[in-house]
Amino acid sequence: MLGVCYYPEHWPEKVWTEDAAAMAALGITYVRIGEFAWSQMEPRRDAFDWGWLDRAIDTLAAAGLKVVLGTPTATPPKWLINERPEILPADERGRVLRFGARRHYCFSSPAWWEETQRIVEAMGSRYGEHPAVAGWQIDNEYGCHNTVLSYVPHCLPAFRNWLHKRYQTIESLNEAWGTAFWSQTYGGFHEVDLPNLTVTEANPSHLMDYRRFASDQVAVYNRLQVDILRRLSPGRFLAHNFMGFFTEFDHYPVARDIDVVSWDSYPLGHTDQRLPMPAEDKTRWARSGHPDVAAFHHDLCRGMGSGRWWVMEQQPGPVNWADFNPAPAKGMVRLWTWEAFAHGAEVVSYFRWRQAPFAQEQMHAGLNRPDGVLDQGGEEATQVGREMTAFGEALGARRQAPAALIFDYEAVWTFQIQPQGLGFNYKALAHRFYRCLRRLGLDVDILPPGAPLDGYALVVAPSLPMIDGAAVAALESSGATIVLGPRSGAKTKTFQIPEGLPPGALRALVDLQVTRVESLPPSVQDQLTWANKTYPVGLWRERLESDSAESTATFQDGEAAIMTQDDRHYLGFWPEEAFLTDFIAALAEARGLTIQRLDEALRLRRLGDLTFAFNYGDRSLPAPAPEGADYLLGGPEIPAHDLAVWKTQ
Amino acid sequence: MLGVCYYPEHWPEKVWTEDAAAMAALGITYVRIGEFAWSQMEPRRDAFDWGWLDRAIDTLAAAGLKVVLGTPTATPPKWLINERPEILPADERGRVLRFGARRHYCFSSPAWWEETQRIVEAMGSRYGEHPAVAGWQIDNEYGCHNTVLSYVPHCLPAFRNWLHKRYQTIESLNEAWGTAFWSQTYGGFHEVDLPNLTVTEANPSHLMDYRRFASDQVAVYNRLQVDILRRLSPGRFLAHNFMGFFTEFDHYPVARDIDVVSWDSYPLGHTDQRLPMPAEDKTRWARSGHPDVAAFHHDLCRGMGSGRWWVMEQQPGPVNWADFNPAPAKGMVRLWTWEAFAHGAEVVSYFRWRQAPFAQEQMHAGLNRPDGVLDQGGEEATQVGREMTAFGEALGARRQAPAALIFDYEAVWTFQIQPQGLGFNYKALAHRFYRCLRRLGLDVDILPPGAPLDGYALVVAPSLPMIDGAAVAALESSGATIVLGPRSGAKTKTFQIPEGLPPGALRALVDLQVTRVESLPPSVQDQLTWANKTYPVGLWRERLESDSAESTATFQDGEAAIMTQDDRHYLGFWPEEAFLTDFIAALAEARGLTIQRLDEALRLRRLGDLTFAFNYGDRSLPAPAPEGADYLLGGPEIPAHDLAVWKTQ
Amino acid sequence: MLGVCYYPEHWPEKVWTEDAAAMAALGITYVRIGEFAWSQMEPRRDAFDWGWLDRAIDTLAAAGLKVVLGTPTATPPKWLINERPEILPADERGRVLRFGARRHYCFSSPAWWEETQRIVEAMGSRYGEHPAVAGWQIDNEYGCHNTVLSYVPHCLPAFRNWLHKRYQTIESLNEAWGTAFWSQTYGGFHEVDLPNLTVTEANPSHLMDYRRFASDQVAVYNRLQVDILRRLSPGRFLAHNFMGFFTEFDHYPVARDIDVVSWDSYPLGHTDQRLPMPAEDKTRWARSGHPDVAAFHHDLCRGMGSGRWWVMEQQPGPVNWADFNPAPAKGMVRLWTWEAFAHGAEVVSYFRWRQAPFAQEQMHAGLNRPDGVLDQGGEEATQVGREMTAFGEALGARRQAPAALIFDYEAVWTFQIQPQGLGFNYKALAHRFYRCLRRLGLDVDILPPGAPLDGYALVVAPSLPMIDGAAVAALESSGATIVLGPRSGAKTKTFQIPEGLPPGALRALVDLQVTRVESLPPSVQDQLTWANKTYPVGLWRERLESDSAESTATFQDGEAAIMTQDDRHYLGFWPEEAFLTDFIAALAEARGLTIQRLDEALRLRRLGDLTFAFNYGDRSLPAPAPEGADYLLGGPEIPAHDLAVWKTQ
Repeated sequence: MLGVCYYPEHWPEKVWTEDAAAMAALGITYVRIGEFAWSQMEPRRDAFDWGWLDRAIDTLAAAGLKVVLGTPTATPPKWLINERPEILPADERGRVLRFGARRHYCFSSPAWWEETQRIVEAMGSRYGEHPAVAGWQIDNEYGCHNTVLSYVPHCLPAFRNWLHKRYQTIESLNEAWGTAFWSQTYGGFHEVDLPNLTVTEANPSHLMDYRRFASDQVAVYNRLQVDILRRLSPGRFLAHNFMGFFTEFDHYPVARDIDVVSWDSYPLGHTDQRLPMPAEDKTRWARSGHPDVAAFHHDLCRGMGSGRWWVMEQQPGPVNWADFNPAPAKGMVRLWTWEAFAHGAEVVSYFRWRQAPFAQEQMHAGLNRPDGVLDQGGEEATQVGREMTAFGEALGARRQAPAALIFDYEAVWTFQIQPQGLGFNYKALAHRFYRCLRRLGLDVDILPPGAPLDGYALVVAPSLPMIDGAAVAALESSGATIVLGPRSGAKTKTFQIPEGLPPGALRALVDLQVTRVESLPPSVQDQLTWANKTYPVGLWRERLESDSAESTATFQDGEAAIMTQDDRHYLGFWPEEAFLTDFIAALAEARGLTIQRLDEALRLRRLGDLTFAFNYGDRSLPAPAPEGADYLLGGPEIPAHDLAVWKTQ
Repeated sequence: MLGVCYYPEHWPEKVWTEDAAAMAALGITYVRIGEFAWSQMEPRRDAFDWGWLDRAIDTLAAAGLKVVLGTPTATPPKWLINERPEILPADERGRVLRFGARRHYCFSSPAWWEETQRIVEAMGSRYGEHPAVAGWQIDNEYGCHNTVLSYVPHCLPAFRNWLHKRYQTIESLNEAWGTAFWSQTYGGFHEVDLPNLTVTEANPSHLMDYRRFASDQVAVYNRLQVDILRRLSPGRFLAHNFMGFFTEFDHYPVARDIDVVSWDSYPLGHTDQRLPMPAEDKTRWARSGHPDVAAFHHDLCRGMGSGRWWVMEQQPGPVNWADFNPAPAKGMVRLWTWEAFAHGAEVVSYFRWRQAPFAQEQMHAGLNRPDGVLDQGGEEATQVGREMTAFGEALGARRQAPAALIFDYEAVWTFQIQPQGLGFNYKALAHRFYRCLRRLGLDVDILPPGAPLDGYALVVAPSLPMIDGAAVAALESSGATIVLGPRSGAKTKTFQIPEGLPPGALRALVDLQVTRVESLPPSVQDQLTWANKTYPVGLWRERLESDSAESTATFQDGEAAIMTQDDRHYLGFWPEEAFLTDFIAALAEARGLTIQRLDEALRLRRLGDLTFAFNYGDRSLPAPAPEGADYLLGGPEIPAHDLAVWKTQ
Repeated sequence: MLGVCYYPEHWPEKVWTEDAAAMAALGITYVRIGEFAWSQMEPRRDAFDWGWLDRAIDTLAAAGLKVVLGTPTATPPKWLINERPEILPADERGRVLRFGARRHYCFSSPAWWEETQRIVEAMGSRYGEHPAVAGWQIDNEYGCHNTVLSYVPHCLPAFRNWLHKRYQTIESLNEAWGTAFWSQTYGGFHEVDLPNLTVTEANPSHLMDYRRFASDQVAVYNRLQVDILRRLSPGRFLAHNFMGFFTEFDHYPVARDIDVVSWDSYPLGHTDQRLPMPAEDKTRWARSGHPDVAAFHHDLCRGMGSGRWWVMEQQPGPVNWADFNPAPAKGMVRLWTWEAFAHGAEVVSYFRWRQAPFAQEQMHAGLNRPDGVLDQGGEEATQVGREMTAFGEALGARRQAPAALIFDYEAVWTFQIQPQGLGFNYKALAHRFYRCLRRLGLDVDILPPGAPLDGYALVVAPSLPMIDGAAVAALESSGATIVLGPRSGAKTKTFQIPEGLPPGALRALVDLQVTRVESLPPSVQDQLTWANKTYPVGLWRERLESDSAESTATFQDGEAAIMTQDDRHYLGFWPEEAFLTDFIAALAEARGLTIQRLDEALRLRRLGDLTFAFNYGDRSLPAPAPEGADYLLGGPEIPAHDLAVWKTQ
């Protein structure tokens, strides 16, 4: 189904009716509204003005549209900030930030919790049982603009309480953090500070616990809204719109508390900004987006919560916020929409109905231009709306992927807190594993550590620095071929080197010891030999020792680069794409999986008995379909920026 | 005429007399003094010490020199800052800055206005009618060291008043800024903050109004001094010395309030620091300065106020403040001086008489070395002094240029507030248009938007994002061939997209709509086809649609790149130099102008019936003069770093 | 002798005995302990817990080991900071820094002086005459993490007093700083601020005096501890461990107050981080360290104080703090140890005994792995321990080097305060001179300005911008060939250009004047002609004029590049390595010194009648020894990362 984001408060009331009619005509089912409209709902404290919102919802409902109502907590209004400035967050340098943009609140502000409760209860009471309200979006893009970590004094009691609950005694914290080092011993929880503004790096355990605390604050804050809306709006789904490559908080717990996981998909902006990528890739995919950027998040969202997921905001044209903001190539808005459906999206909702001519996002395209004329993205959405009718229930089918990738937010933080080599980046590593799987034509499920892994032929963990018993057990019992990336098992949960050395608890899978690690400048190159082929390797190298596991790949000097035991493989280096693709291909084939080495612009995805093929490139490509395949869309030659769908036999 | 900047307070009184004699001998007419000497004039509050200044002025006067007296407001003394610390400015991060350098005041500090009034009245009363005082320089280099925008709390009332005056009602401000977006609605002017320290970008209308307010504060502050000096010093000219490529405030209103516009010309420092330029150009012009850097400012100054303009500070040797500080090639100080006269300067005044051996500028050369020996720059100035005698009144002649370039300070701010592409820079774009005109041998007048344009064959507007009715009318009625650069008409004055889309009011000139824009990374290249030739193009692309204008150039995919109507041309892209030169050449020739494709080191300039040719290169070049021309300086072969002047027939 | 750094407070008491036994078995003599253990010694104010430390010392003593006891002032504990937050320092932006790492104190905090006195007296009283305590290390790595310059308000009275003492009258300060410039005149010492947060650059004399003041504070603070320990711990040596390439304070005065100068040698980290170096050098020496990085500091330490010096911390494996942290190539820990002994170290002490699995340095290797197994560094240390027995007293011998290099901390600050060209760096220049000497096989003594220079054939001063009479006299009377680098004599001690122009007082050596200087972007290249050869030259060029000295090298335009008089040479440019090596070779040979042009991976060093040769490269190289040499270690072919030692005939 299709959706759209709409801001009735931006437009004269007289155009609402024709807007709603045009949405319905385009094939739209859901309309998200309200998530930034606090100052319109409550212009002064307790002086609520619901009239306009009542009429907006009724207008949409009258056109047969369903409403997703947003709680407006991403934008507390000016009068509220003036009354309670203690809501404001502070940056790492301790500077209190201001009203004037959005997300100007600290997750640990008690005042903010009271005000959130007030506005959500007011909205929930008013609209919770409104027949047109199908569901809720809670807040908007938690973590956007680096707003998870805040350094105001009122964060401190909350952090200290959190530590107290976690460690019970200060002796236990001192032990866990290793405060014997550098005279850091604390006499009580009341002595612990925020870990910013230290003379040099703070204790990594301290930093990690502050990251966990801040992440938990997001989850708990979200639950505050969940509880109110569950009570006041029975039967409606609750959603949040996550953002691409945001990792300041652990998304999994938040996802588990809601019904529909959604994310905001801006393939061009994400390609330009959010992932280290060679310049030639940024150029090549400037107008189509990198083929694995949106797909990665689709697969991540599907595995994050219950499996129900949406694209809440789909890029419809050029945006305003990246370093460079190209226009999508003709066809890409349609392609992106179909790619989301191919990965199992329930709804793809475009951001936004009409480009606003004012304020911060005036250069952000919509389905319609500021003058109301349907824009290119709108035309492509219309086409998708028409095409979808041919699919019926087929889009609702599901199928477990042959491969799973474990994505871990604590790994992101571990690499950030202690990179050990300049620019070491877990997200880049994880995305590299994902790309290799996709280039081989494999569907991928992305899962949290500890998720059950039954039924997968292949499980890859790009890195699992901190692993608990449940996660080890899930890996052990999976029966899958397992690939463990570098630094897996490198740390205990309290950010210490495990007794008996890394990979700690993962020795249950591959019985080795990492007795030394080194990080290397990019210019220092080594060679990897595996399966009688050599590959360049650099950046990171571990010394692997084992009595029982087998060295299945070696560095130039003959030392072990991969240790293998029972089809479980530990990689003691930062794998380059060429090697990783060959290596995964060999493992997959050994497990009887069919792999296809796809053109770099082509990607596949199965949904039930359908196979989708997407051509992200600017030349047409043959569809990797069997001869005589039954096409629902397209055919054996896929034009540039287009797709084909056929029935899998 | 020649001038020099002199600091009697830096030198023992006994050398003043010989200094004055040497100045006169060198051919100097004007001596600027006093502009940083507050702590010498008033060592403690109200304890004025005028004796030394009386004697300094008298000494200069006795040698036949005229004095330009500077008000010392760029350097409030320490005792004053200690008494009234509320004078100090704050940076964008809110940190109050300190005494210890210069320009340590906030333009919006009421205390500062009082103190300014006090010192200027004291100086004006003392010297306003002194027969040796020919004129005044007010303050020094407004905006130097990024001092226009200050973020202290006492800026806030002034800003709110300014907004109140501009918008009358808060509803009107809310409408103008589009505060319906992100819940930004204000309940009153008292609720509006400074636009710094927001979580992410502030509202562009808010930012633009803060830029305008800060710019206005400079103009109003300047007028405070103007009014006092007009009253106390009748018959004397008032000047200010602007700085190259400073655009934090709109220079035009300040220029209109004074009599003599002047600027401080440091061709090497400006080439090194102030303009994005390919590395090979920085190398090539390291010791001569880029040939269009000083000229651009000469032409800008001439068009800024009444037409009377000076170079107040001319670089005489290596300076101290650029990343690298080469010595000017032999001959360049002379060349720069003559180039200024060729553009119509009344006076070229060197900075400074003698290099100071102490404090911040001890590595800044003067006409004389610290040990008092005449330096290379001094020798070249002496030569100019001798050469000038041959010209008589000829240097006072004026002639309207065939081409006008519209330079707009609001355009600078618009591009800074909303670049939409990384590093998009209006100054670089404007300078590119200027360079192309100069490379074709055309003289250029630089004018503000709205200035009358009668008599020009060619008018180029590198970009005019915000245009008002008067400016449109001036363009419409000019009869000139008009070139409008990208983003012209892109915004209303309140920083919104115009109704009916860009170019808004400029549709009166070329009737088209810009229905989409995109910014592109430098690596994404397109091709422009115009007049059967192709050119590379990138960075920026607009989609131009029109029923009545004609597409006269196309992108690779055939879409319109230039729309033309009645010899008015709208460019929907960021023009490269090669194309722009050919394009302007064709337009100029079509208007019957004579163009000359000059060597990249050669530039021409006419003054009355004289033609000047300047060779910025390190090889000699033939003068592009008719055979048998009558040379006032030089001859048919122009040596490296030299010039020729001949009578135009 | 060998030593090791040990942290009994990090390990269960039960392993101390076996640790001590293993140390003794490895050949270790000295164990440094205690320098970060304040919170263990004094968990709450005045509640000292000496028991564990008594037992630790006794355990070590029982194994025959000697103890170097560290005062723990680099890490004031949390309870103390909470009681007296005025101990904390502030950064240049004025932000007070926090507890949570180390060195969180301001050298000018009176509270901190009291607390230092308290803890040092307590330790001195307890252990000053303990028979196992052989000496003391005072504090730890002064200046680490940029902690010399602090900008808290309580710095201000100390700075003003310091100025008062230096200048006596404010008129004298005004004169010395040239405050006539920019109205900076001060009415009294109470008006002088810290030189941070100014609008643009502060007065260079002001900045220089603040650097000197801050440096003096370190020396005075150190002396506070020296005086207490001299009194309470008679007969024990006092040491401090300086850090590589730290130049925020002048090391010489601190060194003169103690008995043993030591430094912390991390050749890989220092190569990666601390010196501008071409990328290919960083790559080439990534796993061995640049061959002249450790040696430079060895020679510097030897010349810094009495001549007694140690390596207090020797890198034993990969570290954690550089951008990239490679593992030392096999053999390098041994090589580094021997290189230190070859330069005259009394003791080489490894950091640390066993890698800690927790806190900030958990990725820093030790001689032993975190699981207690001897690591590669431990094995190599063991080998050195065995090899040393063959040398007997020979390692105690000394011999004056033929060449001296003058290294000046004020020169570092001068270049930082007024680089005049982007990235101009005195340390890089000094190290380049040092490298050239070493590449020619010459031993070098590094000395402070003013040190006696008798007996040297060759003295090089990479730059001596501020020179006093004693230093000039030492040079004049030395009889050596003297090379003075660019900017020598460029400033008076008050940071002014000397009367009569640079090189000021150095005109006694070479009678010339520097009448102009220029800095040049790297892309602007000139050519140097010397001894009929040409060399590239750039970055910096001086105009040298003289009636009596001879121009012995010229720039491309024929102007003098070197002025020579009586075998004293003034270089008016930034010398490239190729030229400098040839030039020094010629001067050395003219003085009858034997030079050897060594492979870039090979270095020599003599100790008494021994010659050491070190191969930093990864291929074996012939030892530059006479045939039939008598080898104490190795032989005529030196393997990669290995050494040879032979008797000099």
